[in-house]
Amino acid sequence: MSQDSQDGNRKLWGGRFSESTSALVERFSESVSFDQRLYRHDIRGSQAHARMLERVGVLANGEAQIIVDGLDAILADIEAGRFEWKTALEDVHMNIEARLTENIGELGKKLHTGRSRNDQVATDIRLYVRDAIDALVADMTRLADALLDLAEREADSIMPGFTHLQIAQPVTFGHHMLAWREQILRDRARFIDARRRTNILPLGSAALAGTVYPIDREYVAEQLGFDGVTENSLDAVSDRDFAIEFCAAASLTQVHLSRWSEELILWVTPMFGFIRLPDRYCTGSSIMPQKKNPDVPELIRGKSGRVIGDLQALLVLMKGQPLAYNRDNQEDKEPLFDAIDTVSACVRLYADMFPHIGVNRETCREAAFKGYSTATDLADYLVRKGLAFRDAHHVVGAAVGHAVEQGCDLSELPIDTLRGYSALIGEDVYAVLTVEGSVAARDHIGGTSPGQVRAAIARARAAG
Amino acid sequence: MSQDSQDGNRKLWGGRFSESTSALVERFSESVSFDQRLYRHDIRGSQAHARMLERVGVLANGEAQIIVDGLDAILADIEAGRFEWKTALEDVHMNIEARLTENIGELGKKLHTGRSRNDQVATDIRLYVRDAIDALVADMTRLADALLDLAEREADSIMPGFTHLQIAQPVTFGHHMLAWREQILRDRARFIDARRRTNILPLGSAALAGTVYPIDREYVAEQLGFDGVTENSLDAVSDRDFAIEFCAAASLTQVHLSRWSEELILWVTPMFGFIRLPDRYCTGSSIMPQKKNPDVPELIRGKSGRVIGDLQALLVLMKGQPLAYNRDNQEDKEPLFDAIDTVSACVRLYADMFPHIGVNRETCREAAFKGYSTATDLADYLVRKGLAFRDAHHVVGAAVGHAVEQGCDLSELPIDTLRGYSALIGEDVYAVLTVEGSVAARDHIGGTSPGQVRAAIARARAAG
Amino acid sequence: MSQDSQDGNRKLWGGRFSESTSALVERFSESVSFDQRLYRHDIRGSQAHARMLERVGVLANGEAQIIVDGLDAILADIEAGRFEWKTALEDVHMNIEARLTENIGELGKKLHTGRSRNDQVATDIRLYVRDAIDALVADMTRLADALLDLAEREADSIMPGFTHLQIAQPVTFGHHMLAWREQILRDRARFIDARRRTNILPLGSAALAGTVYPIDREYVAEQLGFDGVTENSLDAVSDRDFAIEFCAAASLTQVHLSRWSEELILWVTPMFGFIRLPDRYCTGSSIMPQKKNPDVPELIRGKSGRVIGDLQALLVLMKGQPLAYNRDNQEDKEPLFDAIDTVSACVRLYADMFPHIGVNRETCREAAFKGYSTATDLADYLVRKGLAFRDAHHVVGAAVGHAVEQGCDLSELPIDTLRGYSALIGEDVYAVLTVEGSVAARDHIGGTSPGQVRAAIARARAAG
Amino acid sequence: MSQDSQDGNRKLWGGRFSESTSALVERFSESVSFDQRLYRHDIRGSQAHARMLERVGVLANGEAQIIVDGLDAILADIEAGRFEWKTALEDVHMNIEARLTENIGELGKKLHTGRSRNDQVATDIRLYVRDAIDALVADMTRLADALLDLAEREADSIMPGFTHLQIAQPVTFGHHMLAWREQILRDRARFIDARRRTNILPLGSAALAGTVYPIDREYVAEQLGFDGVTENSLDAVSDRDFAIEFCAAASLTQVHLSRWSEELILWVTPMFGFIRLPDRYCTGSSIMPQKKNPDVPELIRGKSGRVIGDLQALLVLMKGQPLAYNRDNQEDKEPLFDAIDTVSACVRLYADMFPHIGVNRETCREAAFKGYSTATDLADYLVRKGLAFRDAHHVVGAAVGHAVEQGCDLSELPIDTLRGYSALIGEDVYAVLTVEGSVAARDHIGGTSPGQVRAAIARARAAG
Repeated sequence: MSQDSQDGNRKLWGGRFSESTSALVERFSESVSFDQRLYRHDIRGSQAHARMLERVGVLANGEAQIIVDGLDAILADIEAGRFEWKTALEDVHMNIEARLTENIGELGKKLHTGRSRNDQVATDIRLYVRDAIDALVADMTRLADALLDLAEREADSIMPGFTHLQIAQPVTFGHHMLAWREQILRDRARFIDARRRTNILPLGSAALAGTVYPIDREYVAEQLGFDGVTENSLDAVSDRDFAIEFCAAASLTQVHLSRWSEELILWVTPMFGFIRLPDRYCTGSSIMPQKKNPDVPELIRGKSGRVIGDLQALLVLMKGQPLAYNRDNQEDKEPLFDAIDTVSACVRLYADMFPHIGVNRETCREAAFKGYSTATDLADYLVRKGLAFRDAHHVVGAAVGHAVEQGCDLSELPIDTLRGYSALIGEDVYAVLTVEGSVAARDHIGGTSPGQVRAAIARARAAG
Repeated sequence: MSQDSQDGNRKLWGGRFSESTSALVERFSESVSFDQRLYRHDIRGSQAHARMLERVGVLANGEAQIIVDGLDAILADIEAGRFEWKTALEDVHMNIEARLTENIGELGKKLHTGRSRNDQVATDIRLYVRDAIDALVADMTRLADALLDLAEREADSIMPGFTHLQIAQPVTFGHHMLAWREQILRDRARFIDARRRTNILPLGSAALAGTVYPIDREYVAEQLGFDGVTENSLDAVSDRDFAIEFCAAASLTQVHLSRWSEELILWVTPMFGFIRLPDRYCTGSSIMPQKKNPDVPELIRGKSGRVIGDLQALLVLMKGQPLAYNRDNQEDKEPLFDAIDTVSACVRLYADMFPHIGVNRETCREAAFKGYSTATDLADYLVRKGLAFRDAHHVVGAAVGHAVEQGCDLSELPIDTLRGYSALIGEDVYAVLTVEGSVAARDHIGGTSPGQVRAAIARARAAG
Repeated sequence: MSQDSQDGNRKLWGGRFSESTSALVERFSESVSFDQRLYRHDIRGSQAHARMLERVGVLANGEAQIIVDGLDAILADIEAGRFEWKTALEDVHMNIEARLTENIGELGKKLHTGRSRNDQVATDIRLYVRDAIDALVADMTRLADALLDLAEREADSIMPGFTHLQIAQPVTFGHHMLAWREQILRDRARFIDARRRTNILPLGSAALAGTVYPIDREYVAEQLGFDGVTENSLDAVSDRDFAIEFCAAASLTQVHLSRWSEELILWVTPMFGFIRLPDRYCTGSSIMPQKKNPDVPELIRGKSGRVIGDLQALLVLMKGQPLAYNRDNQEDKEPLFDAIDTVSACVRLYADMFPHIGVNRETCREAAFKGYSTATDLADYLVRKGLAFRDAHHVVGAAVGHAVEQGCDLSELPIDTLRGYSALIGEDVYAVLTVEGSVAARDHIGGTSPGQVRAAIARARAAG
Repeated sequence: MSQDSQDGNRKLWGGRFSESTSALVERFSESVSFDQRLYRHDIRGSQAHARMLERVGVLANGEAQIIVDGLDAILADIEAGRFEWKTALEDVHMNIEARLTENIGELGKKLHTGRSRNDQVATDIRLYVRDAIDALVADMTRLADALLDLAEREADSIMPGFTHLQIAQPVTFGHHMLAWREQILRDRARFIDARRRTNILPLGSAALAGTVYPIDREYVAEQLGFDGVTENSLDAVSDRDFAIEFCAAASLTQVHLSRWSEELILWVTPMFGFIRLPDRYCTGSSIMPQKKNPDVPELIRGKSGRVIGDLQALLVLMKGQPLAYNRDNQEDKEPLFDAIDTVSACVRLYADMFPHIGVNRETCREAAFKGYSTATDLADYLVRKGLAFRDAHHVVGAAVGHAVEQGCDLSELPIDTLRGYSALIGEDVYAVLTVEGSVAARDHIGGTSPGQVRAAIARARAAG
């Protein structure tokens, strides 16, 4: 190993110490095993920093380009799998910088002028999260579109609507899909809001107080596509709000996906049988040959816990820290990366899967008859005939009680029996008691009628 | 008790049941003990609903005004403490509606036409949260202004800047206050974003599927100051995203306030002695007569846990629910109200307290000398003399090691000793080693120099 | 107001301060609104402390009895609703002590000798939690017994056993109830373990370092039924492990109850229809007259979130505190009390409700036929005929695929068809394919056969 | 690739499916990347199962030994790094079983007789957690012993005791270390309790209902060192209480370690300067050459968040699941393993580090003079002279107020000034106002006097 290389391996802050860090501590405190995924963003950030240093005269003319080229070579090595990450060099930043100095010599040592690992890592993570949000938002749009298509396909399909998991009123399958779409649209909006607060450049804050070099932060921001520069160095090196905000938005997204999963899992039980999932999103059993388990929905439901746990971990992590940077902050990455990976995979899988959901329309429609789902329609019928709603509610409750005893639907009770509960009831009541009539009657913005579902779809498509 | 009143007390959904709800279940499932605080918003919502029902012809001309007046009378009773809340009537909605029917007769029973408790409570909470956000945002602005004033007062005051709670570099007290201000400004921005997603009207979604009445939802929205109407009834009755988003933003706010508290608590120990808190934010000890404890900061730190717990409770609560409304949702209110109360009180208290913080400037400045806080300046000095940063870092590390052994500051080492570490060091080095020089040299956007602090304050004041 | 009473109201630690605490701070920092529920335990603790002070000579002969009687009178006042709690006196301890001095004069001021509010409140909470555990453990036993009775009643009832919410194999309803019983027994064991760590006396630790008086801590412990005294004063005044351990055990209990609730809610949907819940544990709908909603299970499911949130709040609360007592600790009570109230009510309600669950045996049995629940039995049949399990599994998978296409059960396939999949299949296969046969065959400890269920019940009854 | 090997790679439950699982789903649903760490326990479990199968006649004489040897060979391969884990085989169980069949032929396919992956994985994790607890308990004992030794070394060292982070009363450093020891002893006790509930064998529960084979579960339990067998198969395949209980105990342990870390970090600031940490537990700065940062304590404090997050993740995970096994359960491993790894490393590091903490005794003692730490002693002095405690408290408060104005300690006030506050004060008061006197006077079980510290150490050593 050459002298240069030994130098590269020397702990870069080692001058102060007489004792070498023990292996256990090294393993405990290294981060390169999980922060190496920041390599691309670290290199982009360093290249922009080098160009700025030359522009303000800290580097001589031409030096920046040598650094930029040196970093490009390292990037190529990493992507080709030729880069050996060294735990002794602690983190992604030191690994890359040490290699740069190995490759281009003394000039490499100038790169860190006017910055610190504190503002460097803050910059890297913000770039990384920004990219993650952009990819996620695109997949969320794809998922929202898949729901829109499915809603259109099933705009007329009738299924039971549930409250308290009891059958409440008939709804359309398309309406149910549009409900889910509203949730993912709100999620997307939250990520877009979070992006605005993420995309601000902290570089230039140095360790905590700024730097004595005549840096040009706006130029760095412009190169890297940041919307602006942070206003305060103490805040900038310690701020991880954007990571927490990402995890909070991701937790809420996972809560939604978990709720959908719960319903999908229900709907594929033989007891419901409302839908069919494609085989490739299911798996079998090692012991029960007949099983077709909805594994992907189950895993998505299960993975919600970990994202909520990630959010928790970050809140607890940040709560305990005084200004400015503390080593605790190193612990921000694993929960954040885990949340990014999880929510991204879950959204992508559902965006892929939803177009292939098959709806068992007849089963759904039959189920909508169970549980006296048109009882509310009877009450509303009585209100239209002049009864106060609260009284109508009471009349229908008694009629349902009788039907339950008889083991039949309301629509199966003879007219005389029905009239026994209210003289206002006439033969026209039977039209009101069909599921199609019930659904069609809810005909206003937000209502479940096929017409409103189509109108909502049209508005969504028009909005792009 | 009149017949009407007995009717009012009768369980309004009781027709279906043969068995009376036991006392334990009643107590377990009532919500009026905590949802009565929604009374003002419930009444406003009902008044708008009544006016709409008349406008679309469901109520006759003049009926809405009778209902509106009847509700106003109830409002007056409640605010005068003359309203008796009844647990047997379960919740705020039934209590008010039952009383309305007692007071104005049969017409009261028509109020619930075209709506359900599901969309009614969703409307009430959204109104409540919107008002809470508006009040909170105002107090956050007041707190941000207090920090700005304090930063201005202490723009030149030098204190140690810490990383790892070790003294790192000198900073200005004003700079530290502006760091905190950045945090509260981000918090405020998150609440403003959350308000947009909160201020949408769910009324008209009825139980879950919409209603058969020819309702005019935009008219209701307009009366109540909502920015729009929800797009999907199934989603609207079950959506509590806005509550979770509030609690997530509140958790992050509390994390910030807790971090400030931690520093305030440190700064008032005799070991630091950086600041003085007004007596009225402190309390004494029942046993130790000399104690002056920073109780308000400690309580604010402690109260962060409960808000994080509230967020957790809501995430867990919502995760498990299929569409649409489930009784679980009733559990949304206590954590939400607790988070609102807590974050509101904490922000208000700090907005009140901060103008009265006294800074012990001399103690702060003296502390900034400890811990070799200008060592980075020496490294930067060497870089300006031509050394690569990494080499300069190493040289200074060795010099600090020597000073530690000698028990003196870098600025107290004789020039010959310093030159022993690098021949680049000249007599001009001592100017670099003062805390004033160190602070003044960090003179760029985000830097700690008094000039930059004043420039940041000027920008903030200009932005209003 | 008499001089005595003014003295009583004077802030007891007020000598040090020149400024009066503002109303907002008073409201923010008071605890009497929620810690007054400790009054009985506070009084018991003070009486024991007084007796000990006399025994060691700090109080004169006869003084302890005057204090004890004075406290008994206050206890009677509180329980009769004649005690006015004053916020200005901050907490339950000061309210009671101030009243004692009002009532018995100067002697009351001696009660606080040799203790501090720090060890006093720690003692009170431990007594309170101990009593709460004892009551909870008794209700858990009652619930476990109810499950045992229900299991006995339904030892032969066949229902589908689910994995992945897909029908897997037939099981007995009694077996399912015994599974739940195992969970609550583990919960109970955790509370019993927690009690051991709770029931240790902290009194005598004073503010943080112990006291100069010749106290006899064992005598106090003995009077109050504690198993021992804490070993270290710094630890004892700050330790809230027992509160966290309670909340952790309660969270796990709620997880179990929530899982049961989820299944109960499923089982009462019309799609399953496995069981009937008594009316008094259900409620209706304000708009849908036919609804009978499983409100108690839904609320229990929903309340799990708040207990998990309480645990979270306490973990976050304690994590941030250095030794010894900090004001943050005051925030321990509300989450703890909420967890105690919630888990106690949930366990009690289910202990009451379970004996009244009705099982729809025929519906359950019919459901067990769906989903090829005896496919595993066919595989095991083939293994007994000599096929390796993995090969048998494959054979049955193919046969199930065929039956799915035919829309029939395995037992409905003709023998020739079955033999087409494996020549090992004979006429005796049909006996294996019945649900009764399947269930009966699982006949070992832990298995689902009626015989094993009865054996497990017998073991449980024998164990008492 | 041989036929055998292709067979091994074939999805073992693939007979039912016509469509191949897509790569994305495969990656999403595989677990071998993280459950491979169970290999040793999986193999031990399979060997015991095989021996049992032969004993009860399901395997022929001699077959078990072939399987045991085959598994031993695989174990050797894995530990030598010669085993290729295949994602297509999903998990550790299938990877090992497929390889076994490759190696020993058809007999390998018989191993899975009478069990399922559901009870197999439950067995593996329980074995793994049991081993983890045993190692952790040993390290906790080592840590408790290190604290005992440190307490003994510093039994006479006086430092300030804090409440509210204000100096309250002098304590001994040894006493402070014993406070920490109490915490870790309670933690250890919780893990020992958790072990009892962990060490029960679930194998034999098969998929969910038990098995038709004449298995001997007690024999398997005995081979594997389990204390007993689970009582109910539905419960046994789905129970993850032991994982949650581990994480709850680990969270509380981390709360303690985090609190210690917070104090260690404070104590090494230049403002406190109470202790010295060995260099190897600290690191430097990439920019500030003088820094020596307490990285290990900071990381331990930071890592507490992740363990609390792990607990949260598991609670949320399990809460949503009906009986029996669901795919969600696969998500139990990563949080559990993370909690095990984290708490184990943290305890080990502190057990290593504590013997090397250096105490700056003189700095500690000087600090104890600050903040009127003997004011309580003055109050107690007055009580001994006959004043009621509450009045004494008031007198001393006034005297402290005067001393604060004078900028001196109580012991520096002239006797006439002191007597101005109470005529009971005599010349003997000055002995009471020394820190040594204060500490020595707290001489009862749990008190801070050097004698009591030594007595506590002696009791601990005697207890072993």
